[in-house]
Amino acid sequence: MIMELFDRLFPIQRSITGDGVREMLTILNELVPIEQKEYPSGMTCFDWTIPKEWNVREAYIKNKRGEKIVDLCDHNLHLVSYSVPFRGTVSRDELLARIHTLPEMPDAIPYVTSYYKENWGFCIEHNRLREFVDDEYEVVIDATLEDGYLTIGEGYVPGRGEQEILLSTYVCHPSMANNELSGPLVQTMVYQYLLKRGNLKYNYRFLYVPETIGSILYLSQYGDMLKQRLAAGYVVTCVGHGPSFTYKKSKRGETLADRAAIHVLRQSGKPHRIIEWSPFGSDERQYCSQAFNLPVGSLMRTMYGDYKEYHTSLDNRDLISEEALQETVDMYIKIIETIEANETYRSTHIHCEPKLDKRGLYPSTGGTRSREERERVSMITYLLAYSDGDHDLIDIADKMNKVGSDLAETASLLLAKGLLVPCSGEEIPAYQASGNREEYSRPIPLSKQASS
Amino acid sequence: MIMELFDRLFPIQRSITGDGVREMLTILNELVPIEQKEYPSGMTCFDWTIPKEWNVREAYIKNKRGEKIVDLCDHNLHLVSYSVPFRGTVSRDELLARIHTLPEMPDAIPYVTSYYKENWGFCIEHNRLREFVDDEYEVVIDATLEDGYLTIGEGYVPGRGEQEILLSTYVCHPSMANNELSGPLVQTMVYQYLLKRGNLKYNYRFLYVPETIGSILYLSQYGDMLKQRLAAGYVVTCVGHGPSFTYKKSKRGETLADRAAIHVLRQSGKPHRIIEWSPFGSDERQYCSQAFNLPVGSLMRTMYGDYKEYHTSLDNRDLISEEALQETVDMYIKIIETIEANETYRSTHIHCEPKLDKRGLYPSTGGTRSREERERVSMITYLLAYSDGDHDLIDIADKMNKVGSDLAETASLLLAKGLLVPCSGEEIPAYQASGNREEYSRPIPLSKQASS
Amino acid sequence: MIMELFDRLFPIQRSITGDGVREMLTILNELVPIEQKEYPSGMTCFDWTIPKEWNVREAYIKNKRGEKIVDLCDHNLHLVSYSVPFRGTVSRDELLARIHTLPEMPDAIPYVTSYYKENWGFCIEHNRLREFVDDEYEVVIDATLEDGYLTIGEGYVPGRGEQEILLSTYVCHPSMANNELSGPLVQTMVYQYLLKRGNLKYNYRFLYVPETIGSILYLSQYGDMLKQRLAAGYVVTCVGHGPSFTYKKSKRGETLADRAAIHVLRQSGKPHRIIEWSPFGSDERQYCSQAFNLPVGSLMRTMYGDYKEYHTSLDNRDLISEEALQETVDMYIKIIETIEANETYRSTHIHCEPKLDKRGLYPSTGGTRSREERERVSMITYLLAYSDGDHDLIDIADKMNKVGSDLAETASLLLAKGLLVPCSGEEIPAYQASGNREEYSRPIPLSKQASS
Repeated sequence: MIMELFDRLFPIQRSITGDGVREMLTILNELVPIEQKEYPSGMTCFDWTIPKEWNVREAYIKNKRGEKIVDLCDHNLHLVSYSVPFRGTVSRDELLARIHTLPEMPDAIPYVTSYYKENWGFCIEHNRLREFVDDEYEVVIDATLEDGYLTIGEGYVPGRGEQEILLSTYVCHPSMANNELSGPLVQTMVYQYLLKRGNLKYNYRFLYVPETIGSILYLSQYGDMLKQRLAAGYVVTCVGHGPSFTYKKSKRGETLADRAAIHVLRQSGKPHRIIEWSPFGSDERQYCSQAFNLPVGSLMRTMYGDYKEYHTSLDNRDLISEEALQETVDMYIKIIETIEANETYRSTHIHCEPKLDKRGLYPSTGGTRSREERERVSMITYLLAYSDGDHDLIDIADKMNKVGSDLAETASLLLAKGLLVPCSGEEIPAYQASGNREEYSRPIPLSKQASS
Repeated sequence: MIMELFDRLFPIQRSITGDGVREMLTILNELVPIEQKEYPSGMTCFDWTIPKEWNVREAYIKNKRGEKIVDLCDHNLHLVSYSVPFRGTVSRDELLARIHTLPEMPDAIPYVTSYYKENWGFCIEHNRLREFVDDEYEVVIDATLEDGYLTIGEGYVPGRGEQEILLSTYVCHPSMANNELSGPLVQTMVYQYLLKRGNLKYNYRFLYVPETIGSILYLSQYGDMLKQRLAAGYVVTCVGHGPSFTYKKSKRGETLADRAAIHVLRQSGKPHRIIEWSPFGSDERQYCSQAFNLPVGSLMRTMYGDYKEYHTSLDNRDLISEEALQETVDMYIKIIETIEANETYRSTHIHCEPKLDKRGLYPSTGGTRSREERERVSMITYLLAYSDGDHDLIDIADKMNKVGSDLAETASLLLAKGLLVPCSGEEIPAYQASGNREEYSRPIPLSKQASS
Repeated sequence: MIMELFDRLFPIQRSITGDGVREMLTILNELVPIEQKEYPSGMTCFDWTIPKEWNVREAYIKNKRGEKIVDLCDHNLHLVSYSVPFRGTVSRDELLARIHTLPEMPDAIPYVTSYYKENWGFCIEHNRLREFVDDEYEVVIDATLEDGYLTIGEGYVPGRGEQEILLSTYVCHPSMANNELSGPLVQTMVYQYLLKRGNLKYNYRFLYVPETIGSILYLSQYGDMLKQRLAAGYVVTCVGHGPSFTYKKSKRGETLADRAAIHVLRQSGKPHRIIEWSPFGSDERQYCSQAFNLPVGSLMRTMYGDYKEYHTSLDNRDLISEEALQETVDMYIKIIETIEANETYRSTHIHCEPKLDKRGLYPSTGGTRSREERERVSMITYLLAYSDGDHDLIDIADKMNKVGSDLAETASLLLAKGLLVPCSGEEIPAYQASGNREEYSRPIPLSKQASS
């Protein structure tokens, strides 16, 4: 199912503005409600200005025999993104000065953009340069670059509390698979899971934005709100390729986002590495900028810059796999479930341990115990010993080298027995793991959808 | 000598209450003064209540031919500890439901208790189940479970100051060697050493308690006093078996107890490992509970749960060795001597180094020096450089990778020369290592003892 | 050139006082201005007193045939430094009691001093003891030990600011190469470099002192000034021998001196080790004493005590190399340039990243970039992200694993564009690396020098 969605979205000509973005969001809206917000060209956001809207109908290069030797219809990367309209005959030299290739990867079309400087150009496989033997060429770029709008997609699943969790991905790299169609796909699957799960402690926000300008625009509008409410967030990018995970920490490095993701990765036993935040990256550059410094990390697979097909036409369907996408969806869901399950408690009995058997929490026969009894007693005693207001469930689970959400079920039991009280003071309903994990990846049939 | 004491104590039927505990404490009182304190059944201590006192005269199972096929006389573990009185004929099925075995260790009798739920049962080797071929059996448990007392043994060696050091072991695991007759034996040897040593800076308290209920009871009575006075403490358990040491840190993890024990273990060159505190353990669970959080760790050898004979009849005399017990006594004594020797000083000359040769502390001929001179000068200069009120001798010795008590002798010299002053402000007598380390393990002949 | 200077200084009879020190400083003054400061015998400095001044004209031992079998003319180490005047005939036994040898290094003359106790003696190769077959000997020590002066050499290169950097070396180990003629040589080369470089942010102070008494004396006079002004300092000693560097941290361990030296060593790729401060050492013992605790470390090569020729006549010209001396000069200069280049900035755009292309700082064509572009953009984005007032350039360079002074050039660019402002508030001229690094090691011809 994910790959069917992939195949619908992959051919769309997407850039940082334009109808391609709207088309993609409309298709995703079949699965999950996504509001399209439009912001006009020329609008200022911090140090930036929303550019003109760009749309392209066709673009090609014809040789002297009238053959289209380069055609946007063949691959979206053939045209430099944001190329200005052009129609005319150019000499071979003039044309070659406008053509980008990758000599070191002669079969790949490079990905080139010129968002903020008016320009035009084409991108082709280096091996095809030898076909340019004519002395002049007809060039057509039937595009518009006019005042219009930049489109942001936003989804929301409400929870019981005031705090929220952010997932953010980007919509602007056309006809590339890992970077970046995998992010919107995985984020949408996670969004769909949460819609169906319900009974959430946190509110969940899902952003589909053009990279950089989109997150800057969003922060210029809603940054103060996020600063106040955000408990954790993740940039979802490069999640379809490679055997292992990379988690890039938030700039603060010790936020709930980081602790939950690292906890889940470690407990998963799957290959992974943890890297420090850096300004080489995606929208976490903006989310973690000094004035906001939000708790936003990024769980990826093989990340931008770490694979040779990056930013070329070889970052295609063959590079990614449904299994990798699905495994990433699972991992994001486990992280979210860990955050949902997490809580900080305080023991009610701090003068020595409470007597557990009189509350039915300990076998009345001592001496030898089964493995299961030992595990349960171990979780109980760790929770009682470390619930001092300073350690949340993730901390305690890390001390035990156990899965945090397992611990949450035992914590609910101790809460019911009056041995723990939540530090927040609020009533905490017993944590219940979602029962239908199998279902989350099956998109809701279109007929049952309501579009937003 | 230790093993003779072992042989007297091993056969005693000990539980968390009863005459077995008193008998054990009375025998130990031949070596060191131990006060027996009695607390009545029904008394409340925090969340716990002192149970009825349990004593047993005999217990057996007879087959139809009148043969005793299980007899408490053969092994104390045959009867579930705290079994209620019973006398009657039971069917094979009824009996087998009351019999505990360890299928995975068919030659071991398991250790089973039922302190807080009235019940009875027997424990046998799994291999012997095949002997139970009759259809009914005569069962006799001639025990009493009545209002009585719980007994705590306490010893004390006074020192010059107000602070104290605690050693605590437990008295309630009958006829098992490493866990737990080794603890009372080692603790008593250390106690005897300190009695003879005298001239102590700290007061020393020695507790012999039933595990869990005993330490909780003690804390309910004296916890505030300990919180005020305790400088360091250790739970002495599992100290007779295995080639290497395990030190389990206090919950706070950086207390004097931890620093001294870790320092001594490292300097000893003996194999050891350091583990974090956890609520899987013995009475440090109570001593380190949130309200008290005392500086109490535990120096063990092969610890509870880490050897297959744990909590079975195979934890017997063959499992432990006199050498291991003795080596542990030595290690505890070295830790205590390190704590006795430890002090925080302040240099009187902080504007550059003082001139050492004019005080006879430095060779007047410079250039080349013997190894001994270099060592001595090195200790002097480290003491002067780091005695800034923030580093005690253990810290400074750790920086030098030297034995702390060696450093103490040099510190006394500098104190005498006026180059150091104690931070505590009190007069500190020159540290003197005890000269008779050879003697400590030889129990004082009974005739010379005064009982308490 | 360095080795020519070495050859002029090596034969001079230097001690902690006397004309040898003055002669050495006068020769160095041909290269760099060095002021000679004289302090009288008997003057008190903290716990110390300046000793009498010692000078020696000749010293020898003659056998019965009138042959000089030991002669100060042959090697400065033959006479115990600070030997009192003596002239007379002594028996073989009396003489041997005054003779120092190194049995484990029979071909080496040991280095022995007796600064603070009036005494005399000779030092010879252990192998030569067999030549002492006569029953009596004529001994002449034509020395003076009288009230006089202790000489300190001091140089200074002024900078724009108020803070200063200290280099300190010692003048008192005669006719030994690594420890210690290498220190004065390297320090003088660095001093000469800074004189020619000019345009300095920091003031630079260069001390040439007798070890221990000299730094104590200096601190007694100027310690409070140093405490107020010193940003970083290094003791320059043992810098001519061995393939790798040793950096000994200041006692505080995290000062600018430490961070700059460790940064430069790591970026150099040269073999090195970092060690903690200890009171086994040279004048950092005094500079880091508790009352001052200055930010003074020590960059060495094979350090005192780590090579067998240490403090013997085998620490000679063959032990050191011009390459090693030169490489150390280079390393000190790189450290100083790193300190000069270091600054703490604050980003002016903290709400998301500023738009770089409109300031000409970012390629307007995106997608693929050259390695150089990526490097430059990377430096820019790191500087903007981490310039929050808490991280200086060394910190940011360490995060990037880049050379700090490279980062400084990019920082100047951002400063010019108004994207960074200095935290200090002061006007910061653009950092410019010195262009004439090749020249620094060529001493200025004597004719062009001005003496101080």
